[in-house]
Amino acid sequence: MTERARFAAARVARLATADAEGRPHLVPVCFAVSGDTVYVAVDAKPKRTLRLKRLANLAANPAAALLADHYDDEDWSRLWWVRADGTARILEDGEERARALALLAERYRQYAETPPPGPVIAIDVSRWSGWSAS
Amino acid sequence: MTERARFAAARVARLATADAEGRPHLVPVCFAVSGDTVYVAVDAKPKRTLRLKRLANLAANPAAALLADHYDDEDWSRLWWVRADGTARILEDGEERARALALLAERYRQYAETPPPGPVIAIDVSRWSGWSAS
Repeated sequence: MTERARFAAARVARLATADAEGRPHLVPVCFAVSGDTVYVAVDAKPKRTLRLKRLANLAANPAAALLADHYDDEDWSRLWWVRADGTARILEDGEERARALALLAERYRQYAETPPPGPVIAIDVSRWSGWSAS
Repeated sequence: MTERARFAAARVARLATADAEGRPHLVPVCFAVSGDTVYVAVDAKPKRTLRLKRLANLAANPAAALLADHYDDEDWSRLWWVRADGTARILEDGEERARALALLAERYRQYAETPPPGPVIAIDVSRWSGWSAS
């Protein structure tokens, strides 16, 4: 399995951004992959999104990293992780945001039931990298 | 449960650093908490550690963030996460490194069987923050 495929099959990832001073920020995210782009929805309502640190960071510094990993307490030979390094765009509206929300609704029934109201973050991945213990 | 206690009980976290240009980097880590300090071992041998991006980043920019989270595919009312924001120190040797390795060996039998040979990262946490769906 390629690193991209392993990442794409995971159910949760973590999104790292950094502010203008280089201070990192980190949140867990649900996501969908299309080609070399990872889409992440923002659950907060549009009026509140400007206060979200991840969006303020990406406006100042579009560099982003995402990580999917597997941990197994008993058997460390099963551990793996995949990292996606890239550059983020904020989709406030438009066709690509609509397509991304459709992909997210396909993967998560919770999003199908309640579409996320805010913008979508599109991370264009320049490098997939990873490690596996076995 | 406080955010610190919830974090301390988790088995895996993710460590975000950023390089001098503010590009974020992300790896999964095992850890132990003592007071407001989080200890993370580096598995690579000392001679190779200078090549590890997380250590090069922290030498250039000691700001760090750690995230522990819980994901549940079926029931999003069970989701939670805790983030620890702080500043990192690299412990190459000495008493604090030895104490940290003892704490790590208490939590993970794999570390008790094979002590990690490299330096220990100590992150002094200035802020514990978190979110819980329920």
